[in-house]
Order: sequence, then structure tokens, then C-alpha cells
Amino acid sequence: MDIYKKEKITDYPHLNLIRAKYKDRTGTDKSWLYASRQNSARPDAVVIVPFHQQENKLVIIKEFRVPLGGFQFGFPAGLVDPGESIVQAGRRELYEETGLSVVNVIKQSPAIFSSSGLTDESISLLYVVCDGSANTEQNEASEQIEVKMLSQDQAADCIRQNNILFDVKTWIVLERFAATGKMV
Amino acid sequence: MDIYKKEKITDYPHLNLIRAKYKDRTGTDKSWLYASRQNSARPDAVVIVPFHQQENKLVIIKEFRVPLGGFQFGFPAGLVDPGESIVQAGRRELYEETGLSVVNVIKQSPAIFSSSGLTDESISLLYVVCDGSANTEQNEASEQIEVKMLSQDQAADCIRQNNILFDVKTWIVLERFAATGKMV
Repeated sequence: MDIYKKEKITDYPHLNLIRAKYKDRTGTDKSWLYASRQNSARPDAVVIVPFHQQENKLVIIKEFRVPLGGFQFGFPAGLVDPGESIVQAGRRELYEETGLSVVNVIKQSPAIFSSSGLTDESISLLYVVCDGSANTEQNEASEQIEVKMLSQDQAADCIRQNNILFDVKTWIVLERFAATGKMV
Repeated sequence: MDIYKKEKITDYPHLNLIRAKYKDRTGTDKSWLYASRQNSARPDAVVIVPFHQQENKLVIIKEFRVPLGGFQFGFPAGLVDPGESIVQAGRRELYEETGLSVVNVIKQSPAIFSSSGLTDESISLLYVVCDGSANTEQNEASEQIEVKMLSQDQAADCIRQNNILFDVKTWIVLERFAATGKMV
């Protein structure tokens, strides 16, 4: 496979379509359209997997997502600002979205790709232990968030509901937590 | 939050940008740009998590991904064709991409969302036991795939490499498999 041209075919501030021209295995010219944030750095975003040490529960958020036109159950997340480390971005986003504070970082994934047929977006998963009382006073006006803390049994109940929209990462981690009591 | 208008602002066959106009919590007009395949059905795609019963190993694929400009380690996956069930699409894609056959389905997730800030794309995870010999004769010309089968120890080695591009779902499942020997 040989990509010989990349063309940005829209011009918006936060997200654009890119057309890559390439030769496939047989030497035939092909093109592939994908969405990109065109950040200079990888990952684009940090996704925090928080475990609350006092409550002994996994923390997720119920958040309005414009592309879904409804509320999704997911993890706190956000774009990494220029000059920020993954851990700094994770601490900031967790606090802004939930009011909780990172006590320690358990594990950090490399930059991993959200859906590589559709986008070059990458995220880093930051597994943390956190503490404090949940509050959403720091939410931006475009954010509408409810913080939920789940025990193993509550996670099992949650994942069985068929009317909830789940983020893919959150579903996989919840399924493990429901089955084993461990998030990582 | 109140979405009062959705506008398709590009016109390509497989992927487009959509602008949603909405009023935020304070009643202020806002807009949000996202990428969509605009399928009528959910999920857009099936992602197969295959365990090989004879080899006793997890199956992943190393695949060229145009948006990344390189090879990614991921699970076999593909769009669900009109009229196809998730299980039918999963059987078909697993065979086309790896030559392996589904023996039985262990678990099927609901439609879950890849990255709901950027896209409305949803997938269903299909955990299966499979059998057969890996071959890539059924690959399309645009596909360049190598099938890899990983024991628990090999998964642990794989996930420690820092020069591999991983799909997010695959990284989370591999991390669990490396730690526990279980994929679900």
C-alpha cells in the first residue's frame, strides 16, 4: 500500500474530511475518505477510567452528546491542550467534568485509535484512583453531565439495561468490572 | 440541550460531515460538527473478538489502515450489509479477513459508540469461538492483512511493545487477556 497524496477537502476549525489517494496491493489507484482533527500531537484526547477510593466504585458520567442526540454513559474525557501532558490533561478533565481529584495514576495506555477506518483520532486511557465529592459546577455551558458511581453489582445491572447508549470503551471496561470487580 | 437543526454539509458516498445546531444549557445557540456514515441502521459495523478453540489463542489482525498511514493491530471488522444480522455480518467478515469460521457466539454487545464527540458511528462487539486455518485469500485488493494468534504470554509481550499502533477496543481486550487469560 502506498499513500501518495493527502488532501484536506473541508476547512473547519475542529474537524475535517481528508481524502488519501493510494495504490492498493494490485497497484490500482484508490481513495479513502476519513475524518481528522489534524492535531500535531498524538493522542488527540485523554479518556479517564476513574475508581473512587472512598466509595470503592467505578465512576462514569451520563452526558449529552450532540452527535447522538441524547445521553450517553461514558468516561470523563477531553482534548489534550498544547503543552499539556496526558496526566495533566486527565487531572484537569476529571475535575472539570466530575469535581473529583486524581489520587494516583494506575496505568496509562499508549495513543490508541478510536476507529481507524473512519478517523485518525487517537486517545490515551488513563486509569486512576480518585477522591472527593462529585459535583458538576465546573462544567462548561455546552456540557450537561451527571456523575454516577457504580459498585460491581450496580455495573452488572447497568450493563444489562437495553435503553442506555454506551461508549465502546466504557462498555468493555464495565463488562469486565461487572464480571470480575476489576477495571484493569 | 435542544438540537433544532441538522445539516449535511458535505456530499460523499461513505462519510460526511454534519452540523448540528443546538441550544446549550443556558439557551445560547451553538453548533457541533461531526462525522457520520448516515446508515439508517445501528450499529454501522460489527467488530469480532475471536478466540481460536484448537490453538487456544486470541486472534487479532495486523492490517494496513489508510487514515493511519501504517499497520494497526485490531480485530476483524466490517460494515453490516443491509438485511444482514450482526451475527451473519460477523461470520462473513471473520471468514473474509482471516479464513476462520465461527463455531459459536459467546456474547454480543448492543450498538455502542466509537467516539461520540467526533462521530455517531456505532459498532457491535461479537465475542466468538472460531476454528480453521488462517488464510487471507478472501481479502479484497484494498485489504492487506496478517492474522496473528496470541497466547496469554504472547498478548502480554505484544501489549508491551511501544512501536505498535493499536485499535482502542483491541488494546483493552488484550490488556485483560494478558492479565487474566480471559477475553470476556
